[in-house]
This record gives sequence, structure tokens and C-alpha cells, in this order.
Amino acid sequence: MPLWHIHHPVGAYSAQDKQDFAADITKYYAKAGLPEFYVVVLFHEVPASDFYVGGKPAEDTVRITVSHLARHIDEPDRRKRMTESLNVVLVPYTRDRGLHWEFQIEESPRDLWMIEGRWPPGAGTDAEKAWVAANAAIPY
Amino acid sequence: MPLWHIHHPVGAYSAQDKQDFAADITKYYAKAGLPEFYVVVLFHEVPASDFYVGGKPAEDTVRITVSHLARHIDEPDRRKRMTESLNVVLVPYTRDRGLHWEFQIEESPRDLWMIEGRWPPGAGTDAEKAWVAANAAIPY
Amino acid sequence: MPLWHIHHPVGAYSAQDKQDFAADITKYYAKAGLPEFYVVVLFHEVPASDFYVGGKPAEDTVRITVSHLARHIDEPDRRKRMTESLNVVLVPYTRDRGLHWEFQIEESPRDLWMIEGRWPPGAGTDAEKAWVAANAAIPY
Repeated sequence: MPLWHIHHPVGAYSAQDKQDFAADITKYYAKAGLPEFYVVVLFHEVPASDFYVGGKPAEDTVRITVSHLARHIDEPDRRKRMTESLNVVLVPYTRDRGLHWEFQIEESPRDLWMIEGRWPPGAGTDAEKAWVAANAAIPY
Repeated sequence: MPLWHIHHPVGAYSAQDKQDFAADITKYYAKAGLPEFYVVVLFHEVPASDFYVGGKPAEDTVRITVSHLARHIDEPDRRKRMTESLNVVLVPYTRDRGLHWEFQIEESPRDLWMIEGRWPPGAGTDAEKAWVAANAAIPY
Repeated sequence: MPLWHIHHPVGAYSAQDKQDFAADITKYYAKAGLPEFYVVVLFHEVPASDFYVGGKPAEDTVRITVSHLARHIDEPDRRKRMTESLNVVLVPYTRDRGLHWEFQIEESPRDLWMIEGRWPPGAGTDAEKAWVAANAAIPY
């Protein structure tokens, strides 16, 4: 489910940084009960000549888009808290390194989503718990 | 209309594979009555150090996002069948090669979409049929 | 807010072209009252072997996706005019260079969006005007 695209300046992150960043994002969703393999994080290194903020080449901005599929939250306060808690995950990889950062979460239809040719099981079901335990899209 | 982003491991597809894959996707939509040139497929080769699944570098996963514009389906059963039939298109390029795969379809507003500075004609109209025949965004 | 992804053929744009293109896009939103730094434009050079239109490798197509966050327009006529006026911004960088072009605007939830760990101020508020003046996500 969550698909993260992280657009970042050249050299902003080492291979270890990227692995740590992806692991921290994964932990966030695993705590919420999602299978770890749902979390896909793609890093895109973008040179300043291809990355413009306010019409000017940017060397210190991280721009992130997140797509949520498995869980859609309706209640305004919970939406706010979720967004703020994801921001907390970002801080060590952005603000604490002197980088600007902006992110947005998009909501993609749950019923137009498949993994390994299977329909992801409903939130909180036994089948979803089995996917968590196996960390794989096993038959159910 | 349909815009496909295919994120894949390094070396997963040859140039011929990519052309075949894109052609198979295009055939799917052409059968549904869409102009072939509506179908745009972008391949993104992503090294394992930029591609994380469940917090771990991934070398055998294909992650696909699809954006639909020309047709939006409302009826739940038809949405399900459409998604399953797109999965069938993916199988030869994923499961049959020992690759994991996940895809999602997003629905982008039809009224905020232009091609060649023109408004794409309504579904099933004579103008759309003329675009199919010309395989181009001709005046109408 | 607006996040632009511009997928273009190899060599279609020089560094200066890209800066000019991004500056023209930025001017469009600044005129509408948005802070300039909201406008992020990412260029993606895609070789023909990764870029398929209608199932065929494409060397002369520019495919653009735009994500809107700060302002969502409801009224159909205004949506139409906005889309057409964005198309006008594209013409010098597409049609006038003999390139095909297609773009779509997506609407991402405003309440799932943060910049520099802050909630972007409401449309037309004094706080938003302060962000415009500072061209930065200052405390408010």
C-alpha cells in the first residue's frame, strides 16, 4: 500500500541513509498493523538542473509524495494526526540535515489495487494478519 | 489517458521486452475503444539501493501505477473485472519471470486533461472514433 | 502545492529552457496569489526505449502530470479555463518546438499536506500573504 516517492538532491543520502529512511517509514506502517511488504519506498536523485522550486534550481529540497491504499481515514482530526506523525518520521532526514521538505499524501482507490495477482485482504481481517505474519501475499 | 509508470529492477526488461509490454497494454485499451496514442507507458529502471520493499533493498519487484482519465467505471463488479483483466496483462512480465508485482489504478479528473491543446472527445462519440481512426488528436 | 512532473525526450530542453519553463509555470501560480516556493517542477528525461506512446517508442512527446493542493476549483467553467490557461503556458515548450504534448491535473487532499513541518495557511489568509512576502514557510 503505501507507495513513497522521495525526490532528493544529488548526494543527499548515502545507501545506508536510504535503507534507514525506508526502514523508519516501514516501521510506522507496521505499527499500524500493515504487512511490511506493503511499504514501497522509491528514491529519486534529481540534479538541480531538473529540480525547480519557485522557478529556481534547488539543491536543498526534498519533495515527497505518498500514496495510501490499504487504509483511508475519514475523521479530520485523525487525518491531521496521521499527517503530523508522518512528518515526525521525516525530520531526521530533512530538517536535521538542513534540507527543506514538503510532502503530500494521496488516496488511491483500494478496490483498484492488487498484489501478486491477489486482492489485499480487508483491514484487520484474519487474512491480513496472516499476510503480516508471512510478510508475503499468500493465498487466503 | 492511461498513463503507466512501471518501476522495475535493473536489467529486468530488454528494449524488446519493454516494447512488447507497452504494446500489450496498448492493445488492452484499444479493444475498449480508446485511441492507441492515449496509452503512455514509462519504464523506470530503479537500482536496489533506491528501491525498498518492507524496508529492504528489492531486486525482484515490479511496482506499477496506472492513471485512468478517459473512462471512469463506477459499478463495483466492473471495477473488479477491469483490475483483474489488467493483472492478466502483467503476468507474462512479472510472475512468469519470477518477479513480485503490485499495481494500483488511480482516477484522474477527465475535465482537467488536454492533449495537443485539445479537449479529448467524450466516450463513444463520433469525434472519439475519428481520433481512433486517425490515431491522432485531430480537430473536431 | 503545485507539483509538476515533466517527462520529455532526451535533449528536448537545455538547462536554460528548463529554468525558463519552470519560471513561466511559477509566474502562473504567483499571479493567482500563491507563494512562489509552493511551485515545484521536476524534469525527467526519458529515452525512447523507456517512453511508449500507443505501444511505440516516442521521441517527440512531452507527458506532464500536475498535482494541485493549495487550491481546488469546483465550478466547471473555471476548471475549464484554468486547464486551458495552463495549456497556454505549455505551448512555447511543446507545440512551438514540434513536440506532441499531453497533460493532466490531479487534485491531492489539502489536509494531508505539510511544508517544513507546518500546515500551509488557508487560501487568501494573512498568513498565506506572509508566506508569499517571505517566500518561505515561516511560523504563523
